[in-house]
Amino acid sequence: MGGVPIPMPTDSGGHVDGEARLYARSSGDDKATIMAMLTALDAMRAAGLRPSVNLKFFFEGEEEAGSPHLRQMLERHRDLLAGDAWLFCDGPNHQSGQQQLQLGVRGVIDAELTVYGPTRPLHSGHYGNWAPNPGAMIATLISSMRDDDGRIRIANFYDDVRPVSASERRAIAAIPPVDKELRRSLGLAHTEANDAPLAERIMLPALNVRGIQVGAVGAQAANAISTEARASFDFRLVPNQTLERVRNLVNAHIRRQGYFVTADSVTTAMRLAHPRIARVVWGEGGYPASRAPMDQQFARAVARAVGDGAGKPPLMLPTMGGSGPLYLFEQVLHKQIIILPIANYDDNQHAANENLRLQNLWDGIEVYAGLMGRLGAYWKN
Amino acid sequence: MGGVPIPMPTDSGGHVDGEARLYARSSGDDKATIMAMLTALDAMRAAGLRPSVNLKFFFEGEEEAGSPHLRQMLERHRDLLAGDAWLFCDGPNHQSGQQQLQLGVRGVIDAELTVYGPTRPLHSGHYGNWAPNPGAMIATLISSMRDDDGRIRIANFYDDVRPVSASERRAIAAIPPVDKELRRSLGLAHTEANDAPLAERIMLPALNVRGIQVGAVGAQAANAISTEARASFDFRLVPNQTLERVRNLVNAHIRRQGYFVTADSVTTAMRLAHPRIARVVWGEGGYPASRAPMDQQFARAVARAVGDGAGKPPLMLPTMGGSGPLYLFEQVLHKQIIILPIANYDDNQHAANENLRLQNLWDGIEVYAGLMGRLGAYWKN
Repeated sequence: MGGVPIPMPTDSGGHVDGEARLYARSSGDDKATIMAMLTALDAMRAAGLRPSVNLKFFFEGEEEAGSPHLRQMLERHRDLLAGDAWLFCDGPNHQSGQQQLQLGVRGVIDAELTVYGPTRPLHSGHYGNWAPNPGAMIATLISSMRDDDGRIRIANFYDDVRPVSASERRAIAAIPPVDKELRRSLGLAHTEANDAPLAERIMLPALNVRGIQVGAVGAQAANAISTEARASFDFRLVPNQTLERVRNLVNAHIRRQGYFVTADSVTTAMRLAHPRIARVVWGEGGYPASRAPMDQQFARAVARAVGDGAGKPPLMLPTMGGSGPLYLFEQVLHKQIIILPIANYDDNQHAANENLRLQNLWDGIEVYAGLMGRLGAYWKN
Repeated sequence: MGGVPIPMPTDSGGHVDGEARLYARSSGDDKATIMAMLTALDAMRAAGLRPSVNLKFFFEGEEEAGSPHLRQMLERHRDLLAGDAWLFCDGPNHQSGQQQLQLGVRGVIDAELTVYGPTRPLHSGHYGNWAPNPGAMIATLISSMRDDDGRIRIANFYDDVRPVSASERRAIAAIPPVDKELRRSLGLAHTEANDAPLAERIMLPALNVRGIQVGAVGAQAANAISTEARASFDFRLVPNQTLERVRNLVNAHIRRQGYFVTADSVTTAMRLAHPRIARVVWGEGGYPASRAPMDQQFARAVARAVGDGAGKPPLMLPTMGGSGPLYLFEQVLHKQIIILPIANYDDNQHAANENLRLQNLWDGIEVYAGLMGRLGAYWKN
């Protein structure tokens, strides 16, 4: 903040340790940024400082539910939301602890898969090696879709992937190495693709097995051949993949494995008509990726302003691995949008024990105050 | 029973339809045979008939729990259990509805498998395509062990399998065809290995996926990379496979896929030392297969005696697909043992709505009465 005194709690005040964590649902994702922005504004007002640019705040409450009404809201309030550029304040900071600015997100789409065995569970002794085994079938199908190194084996899946640009490569090379320490903290001796760096790997699409459910394991396991097997996936997408093309490629792949693919409920008549049936139900949410060029002027101005507040320039990453509906701001409002997160990377977002490291909150207040106070000096649209 | 009148309920009596079913836990497996044997004995007594051979009844209550004390009981009561041959009265009758006699069982052994991802669940966006994905790993591993046609892909798994003899082939060829109707009743357009007959398929070992558990599917699915994936298997074995060799072959196969295999709890230190860890815990129960030759004299005598009671000779099958601890009677008592079931094949044994078709119970009483009354005429040990 260029030496301007802003009253706020700090660990130098001696009362609260910045390493302490606040545990609460959505503490890191996404109450942290909301509180940091508003506190920054209060602090500037208390210090008699005015923002250097005009500000509009837009808080959307359905982002974790696929933002089903966002397009409608943006279209309806196009005039009210008029502006020069957008900042998307969500997600975690870099694993190194440094402030980061991300120029894109991956897209996301999910699917539920069911394959079928006999209409009633069968004794695995009397019918094993004769009746189709849905647990084995779904394993074969999943392994046909993705190898253990993350490579998606679905034909043509990478055709639309936008190549990584030279400036993106340089940006990735400039990111402090964190993989080794990350692996250690996660109990991983190795990561996929021969320990290729995380920042490189998120420039590519991903197929995540969210879940598999067949029969039972452990004490509940029974010597039975199950009637069906289920799996759930999410696909992370990159520019210029489209949802429709991904859905078509996956469905076509499953068909090539010999399956009749349907989104409908599966009847006994259908089972008797097709040797293998895969019910594939695509999630209604989902959106494509978004990734601005590294030399974008708005991003450079934000980086300088944030650097003024934080005391050093933020890391510039081509993309974050996660997803957000950034494409809608581009499609509906035709404005640039980049990401400025503040939460600790290990905040367990969406999971048990979600938390916010207090120093991240305090640093975030400085980051947003620096941005509001200094952006006007660097950004002349 | 050669025309001897035995008082028992029949559907010709007009009171109860033989197609009616009695629904109860273990109604088919294995209360049916116990009640049929004792009722046959009562009926013979009421008719003033004596069994043609000396009889001993041995009811073991732990057969569904791996018979952990059976060996000890047989050893301790060797004298009390002395005899010429054994009948094992368990399992279902043939799918054609005909009475059958089976000369063997498959062996069985089960295993629980766990593979590991990060020590805490990770956001599939931020870490997808970087963190090892246990759901994908277990799918790859399962598909490396078995193909969709039931063929076990574990090296040397079939080495010990005793070839099917010429007389076994003839017996299988003589079994009435049931596969087509079975498939129809189970909603299956096809069965494994190009619709190869069930009676042939149970002459081979089987790998059944009892269950797979990873993350969650459907409404509970989350965009997370799981910390582990679990699967449960049962293997059905045939002569001359041994449990020890099967365990060793499976463990060696998993090792060849790049896994460190352990039966112990997996610590973070172990995770950091090995890129891939598979925890494989073999069930403590389990037993090898047993299969008597088709021309065995005792089996031929039982078939003739049963035929006298039932009015036509029973089918003679080389084996049943299910398992039972027959090998212990051979190993400890050095006696032949064959199987004479009476329950309907569709009794849902071990599952919901287990049931006994009443006509099977009534026919079973005649079968056992015929056996007890006539065996002495054909069996001179």
